[in-house]
Amino acid sequence: MILTVTLNTALDVTYRVPRLLPHASHRVADVSERPGGKGINVARVLAALGHEATATGFTGGPVGAVVGELLACSPGVVDALVPCAGTTRRTVAVVDEASGDTTQFNEPGPLITAAEWARFLERYEELLAAGTRAVALCGSLPPGVPVGAYAVLVRAARAAGVPVLLDTSGEALRRGVAARPEIIKPNAAELAELTGSREPLPATRDARRRGAHAVVTSLGPDGLLAATPEGTWRAAPPRALAGNPTGAGDSAVAGLLSALAEGLDWPERLARAVALSAATVAAPAAGEFDPRTYEEVRGSVKVTRAD
Amino acid sequence: MILTVTLNTALDVTYRVPRLLPHASHRVADVSERPGGKGINVARVLAALGHEATATGFTGGPVGAVVGELLACSPGVVDALVPCAGTTRRTVAVVDEASGDTTQFNEPGPLITAAEWARFLERYEELLAAGTRAVALCGSLPPGVPVGAYAVLVRAARAAGVPVLLDTSGEALRRGVAARPEIIKPNAAELAELTGSREPLPATRDARRRGAHAVVTSLGPDGLLAATPEGTWRAAPPRALAGNPTGAGDSAVAGLLSALAEGLDWPERLARAVALSAATVAAPAAGEFDPRTYEEVRGSVKVTRAD
Repeated sequence: MILTVTLNTALDVTYRVPRLLPHASHRVADVSERPGGKGINVARVLAALGHEATATGFTGGPVGAVVGELLACSPGVVDALVPCAGTTRRTVAVVDEASGDTTQFNEPGPLITAAEWARFLERYEELLAAGTRAVALCGSLPPGVPVGAYAVLVRAARAAGVPVLLDTSGEALRRGVAARPEIIKPNAAELAELTGSREPLPATRDARRRGAHAVVTSLGPDGLLAATPEGTWRAAPPRALAGNPTGAGDSAVAGLLSALAEGLDWPERLARAVALSAATVAAPAAGEFDPRTYEEVRGSVKVTRAD
Repeated sequence: MILTVTLNTALDVTYRVPRLLPHASHRVADVSERPGGKGINVARVLAALGHEATATGFTGGPVGAVVGELLACSPGVVDALVPCAGTTRRTVAVVDEASGDTTQFNEPGPLITAAEWARFLERYEELLAAGTRAVALCGSLPPGVPVGAYAVLVRAARAAGVPVLLDTSGEALRRGVAARPEIIKPNAAELAELTGSREPLPATRDARRRGAHAVVTSLGPDGLLAATPEGTWRAAPPRALAGNPTGAGDSAVAGLLSALAEGLDWPERLARAVALSAATVAAPAAGEFDPRTYEEVRGSVKVTRAD
């Protein structure tokens, strides 16, 4: 089983409007909802790849109840969310159909108490001990959770002998890296914030020196750049794919983690991650991946040494 | 008791952001929620004026459950909402704190089945017979409700001897007017759509000829223009008030209806409606009214004959 942690789960609400006009009133004809937060997205992709995926984190209030109901309809994802007294946040994505652009509004999430955080840690350690082969720690921290939370979760995974991938940003990433996770997966902006450098190759190597065993930097349409104990690689899709990049990073995490759990080597892990990202960009619905594109791309990802 | 009908109730969600940037991602620090839909707002103002107010309409799903919980915390408003299988809509208002402007997203609302509509009609007739002194029919129709719905509700009220105020727009207003409600309260745009004329005085008189006993046209900051069986009046606030006009029209409806239920004459009804509107514009929170402004303005509204 692969465990994904989403401390700040969400109900992702998408509104499609013919055109977004600031300061006007819009009738939204098309509303869709799905359980969200990066770790939930990762779990869904893992399940689609045939892995047993368990999702934990916090859920609460009436919005949390909807997240739970929708998660129960996601085949292959086991709900191990921990209840909290506050209400799970919503994210609202307004898609302008004229331009295809999205305007995003993210609520902050519930205030987590010290007792709730302690209950979560207990549950997390139980899950680590219950046959977890790899764990992904994903996304922002809800209010009240200590900023060093991911460092605590990384250390607990390492103590249990479970490899851990950390995908977050800002101070939560900086603190988490120092606890020596197996993999971090920053994008270019997150990497620049962590290292102070906008040069992908030196910055990726710098991030390794800060504690991560491997750093996989997402370069958007150009693919991935990985600095690992076994060497440095670039992995690029065979061609640029048009579409919606929402969720492409979460698919890359699912690719890396599933390949790690299957014992594949770094070039194979990177090829899978790039193919899943490309298949997510190409999918008609945001955050899903197109299985045909995945099958088509995964044999032709160019993985080259960058040492 | 005064009955308000909100067929398309809502959960009104307000996001405050420092600045709305189209196609960007926004962290929303300030989220507020309240039960909404025009008739719910009218009921809240009626209750604040000391009237017994009962709110009916449809409510359903997890969002409807939140509306019910919040309504239970609204003092003086009795919940007589009828359950439906679909989910109550949300409206999302994004307030740009730099400009004060609001960008609004309105979901369409639940699909109402013929059986649900029939159940609502039964409940409505029971409420009309249970000591209702006046009824307000407010807002848009959810999907599935027949476009002639308000005509049916107006006729049922008239058959029960209960005066009825209709506050809607478009085809629902056109059909409803023909059933001869006591009062309609269009704004200038709704009146122009109904009559084809942008001249307030002739258009207001034209709207009376279409069936309404009285037409009270809202002229925004200039107050109200009323064509009634007893004459034609203009009613204007003593001075322009700065603030947020959201809910000012609903407060005017509550003013007209409460004054009608108390047996006040037209100049007194109009003075109350204008003062409540002004006090709503002046209130710090959208859709509430400021009691001090109300007391201060209501003695100095200028009501003049326009015959």
